[in-house]
Amino acid sequence: MPNHQKYIQEAIKEAKKSLKGGGIPIGAVLVQNGNIISRGHNRLIQKGSTILHGEMDCVENAGRLKGTDYRKCTLYTTLSPCEMCSGMVLLYKIPRVVMGENETLRGPEELLKENEVEVVNLNLPECRKMMQEYIEKNPKLWNEEMERVGY
Amino acid sequence: MPNHQKYIQEAIKEAKKSLKGGGIPIGAVLVQNGNIISRGHNRLIQKGSTILHGEMDCVENAGRLKGTDYRKCTLYTTLSPCEMCSGMVLLYKIPRVVMGENETLRGPEELLKENEVEVVNLNLPECRKMMQEYIEKNPKLWNEEMERVGY
Repeated sequence: MPNHQKYIQEAIKEAKKSLKGGGIPIGAVLVQNGNIISRGHNRLIQKGSTILHGEMDCVENAGRLKGTDYRKCTLYTTLSPCEMCSGMVLLYKIPRVVMGENETLRGPEELLKENEVEVVNLNLPECRKMMQEYIEKNPKLWNEEMERVGY
Repeated sequence: MPNHQKYIQEAIKEAKKSLKGGGIPIGAVLVQNGNIISRGHNRLIQKGSTILHGEMDCVENAGRLKGTDYRKCTLYTTLSPCEMCSGMVLLYKIPRVVMGENETLRGPEELLKENEVEVVNLNLPECRKMMQEYIEKNPKLWNEEMERVGY
């Protein structure tokens, strides 16, 4: 039985690191055989990056893994993965995604499930609150991001 | 009538730039209202990046565009976009993708079409040949990449 709570807390630490650096509090960790092999967080503000979402940053930081390694991983993320991040999960055939919440926004979870990715929503008030507080304090920036993706 | 041939040649130039830099020859350009607003190419070898495919690098290099800008763009790419790059197209609602070929590999074009993205395959021998020659000269590296994505 995987210890989801333990690993999602590490993703939350990444989200808080992003917040501390002036960025959006979304974080992720990649776990293989019980070990955190990579960490990442959203870099929209810090690097002006539109592709380094928390999940993408995390997988990028993992480097050039073998396919057989990705196939043993679980991606923990504080927020439901968007179309791009879900596409990345499908490309590397990461078999399991565990998210902190999907109320702030919800990516194509059905697409993941249709492609046999196990999707677990921990539905954590802590993750929702972190985003709510960020959005309340940074409405202009959040609205800019939502206009960008048309959510 | 968009001048597809003109813009795909610019994507090919990007692919050749990658090849010259020791990388995989896949390139892309982003075109808005007839203007190339961004360019990019695969960075697997050059940066050890598993997320900077040509299309991702190109959109990253465009910076923080507005949603209304992405919605006027066409993404030209020398090769059919993979799951991740297609997901990025869906996230930013880029309405049109024009590819050089889809025989070397073929991404989820149906998913793009189902989501009302116009998909054009120019089926160019020049693009196929570029990849064939690369694969013949770099079988180990290409096999590594194919194992990574499980194609």
